[in-house]
Amino acid sequence: MPRPPLWVMRQAGRYLPEYRQLRARHDFLTVCRTPELACEVTLQPIRRFGFDAAILFSDIMMPLESMGVELAFNPGPVIGHPIRSRKDVEALVVPEEGQVTPFVGEAVRLLRQKLEVPLIGFAGAPLTLAAYLVEGRGSKDFSRLRAFLYQEPEAALLLLDKLAVTMVRYLRMQVAHGAQAVQLFDSWAGLLDPDTYRTFALPAVQKVMAGVADLGVPRIYFANDAQALLPTIAEVSAEVLGVDWRMPLKEVRRLTKDRFVLQGNLDPAVLFAGPKVVSERVRAQLAQTQGLRHIMNLGHGIMPETPIDSVQALVDTVKQFPGT
Amino acid sequence: MPRPPLWVMRQAGRYLPEYRQLRARHDFLTVCRTPELACEVTLQPIRRFGFDAAILFSDIMMPLESMGVELAFNPGPVIGHPIRSRKDVEALVVPEEGQVTPFVGEAVRLLRQKLEVPLIGFAGAPLTLAAYLVEGRGSKDFSRLRAFLYQEPEAALLLLDKLAVTMVRYLRMQVAHGAQAVQLFDSWAGLLDPDTYRTFALPAVQKVMAGVADLGVPRIYFANDAQALLPTIAEVSAEVLGVDWRMPLKEVRRLTKDRFVLQGNLDPAVLFAGPKVVSERVRAQLAQTQGLRHIMNLGHGIMPETPIDSVQALVDTVKQFPGT
Repeated sequence: MPRPPLWVMRQAGRYLPEYRQLRARHDFLTVCRTPELACEVTLQPIRRFGFDAAILFSDIMMPLESMGVELAFNPGPVIGHPIRSRKDVEALVVPEEGQVTPFVGEAVRLLRQKLEVPLIGFAGAPLTLAAYLVEGRGSKDFSRLRAFLYQEPEAALLLLDKLAVTMVRYLRMQVAHGAQAVQLFDSWAGLLDPDTYRTFALPAVQKVMAGVADLGVPRIYFANDAQALLPTIAEVSAEVLGVDWRMPLKEVRRLTKDRFVLQGNLDPAVLFAGPKVVSERVRAQLAQTQGLRHIMNLGHGIMPETPIDSVQALVDTVKQFPGT
Repeated sequence: MPRPPLWVMRQAGRYLPEYRQLRARHDFLTVCRTPELACEVTLQPIRRFGFDAAILFSDIMMPLESMGVELAFNPGPVIGHPIRSRKDVEALVVPEEGQVTPFVGEAVRLLRQKLEVPLIGFAGAPLTLAAYLVEGRGSKDFSRLRAFLYQEPEAALLLLDKLAVTMVRYLRMQVAHGAQAVQLFDSWAGLLDPDTYRTFALPAVQKVMAGVADLGVPRIYFANDAQALLPTIAEVSAEVLGVDWRMPLKEVRRLTKDRFVLQGNLDPAVLFAGPKVVSERVRAQLAQTQGLRHIMNLGHGIMPETPIDSVQALVDTVKQFPGT
């Protein structure tokens, strides 16, 4: 049985000295918007660690500018005019495919010329994008989003639908330029109870998934902190399900009826515990998933302060598995 | 079938104009440390809304000062010297019962003279207190805590044990002065996977629960965002389990084998959706739990920006249930 493939969420990012060096000269938005820089940053972790896939360096909020959203980063996303009413939702533009962040398409095209491993494109799931749009910025619990769903259900559904249509176009554009898989990040799905998730989040996820189904690329759905939602998530039309570290993969598999290749779910905090602990934990994880359909990854994005030697230990342990 | 009892987590707090008025004259720590002020603030929501129980106004971090921890609020807790090694853990004092925040005992004594409803005492669960002690301040995911558990398991167990012993003494002191129930807040339990929870968090929770078992007061365990942990939490020696809004109570009941009176779990964000939505949601909740052992509460602390008329709608709807 060969080892599982390995990549790491946010593998292009601040834990890498070469990324910090580049960022000292260019701010975050400039890197996102300049295809040559986005391409370079995407390649950095591939060069250093030889991950089995690259993921485009960008931010889930980027395509929202094409919808007319005023967007800044400080350092998390800040929305100029948060969405709080049906009128706000109606004012959002649904851009045509060619109008959604063309610089991302160009970055993908450049990357495919240089990459020898598959390139994963991505988008934010509608619920997660709506969370930022309604709240106006990051939050511990996005209670304004949930209040909006409860108080203005029809406006919320319209918002989620507009986001879904835009994300379909955004992902189609990425695949047209060369992305070989797509991941939909639902970082805030876990804020909802199953009924609310089924009413609001799920239809929009399904719309995105259906909208890219004909492209024939693997579709990855990453749902964070979503343990209570797994029986509902089992219905999502995706090939791969990414999950955080909070539930053993065996239990995830059971609750989702073994419908997905699972991706994850090493706790990113393990990487702060030193290379020895990393190797032990990674080996334990791999032993448990051996023979099952599994893509090795962290359960969440790698943290900016992560020591490089821990990442190296992760990579070495996976590449040497099962070893001699 | 009578209506369930109602109280609200953080019911004494910033959403109340009378609290904000008092806080304009006294800072947070002064209110916590001055029995007359803590007593007054605890009484405010009882006077205004007639909740069925009072909960002592304080902060879970307060007793840590008695352990030698340097504590500030800015506005969340900030630890002077975060715990990062076994030596740091060994330096923590385990105070005798009489030495744990005597001002809290005095506040409880004053309150019992004035209250006609039961008074709930409380403490932080050891894992949640350890989260702040190791991280040094609030965090979205307390990854340093998890890294500490993985890297220094024995020091972590010692830390949790010292916290458990101190919390037993803290809660015993509160009951000795008149608290008629105790709640253990495990706000960050949900950061752990079930194995890690079982190894680190659960033994410390059980030690606290066992340490107050002879007092004969109801023991409430509140575990936040802990859906994946519920089968393990079913083992906790408590009479009441408080849960957040993320999972229907019916499912919580099933996963915990109907071992607990359940407390919760209205989404606090419902209170931002206006009195009409509040009434509908509360009635739906009550209809589902009718005949079951249930304490009506929010699934998390009430938010500072919550409109007063929504809280009134919550109270009125519960008090009028099932109505005519």
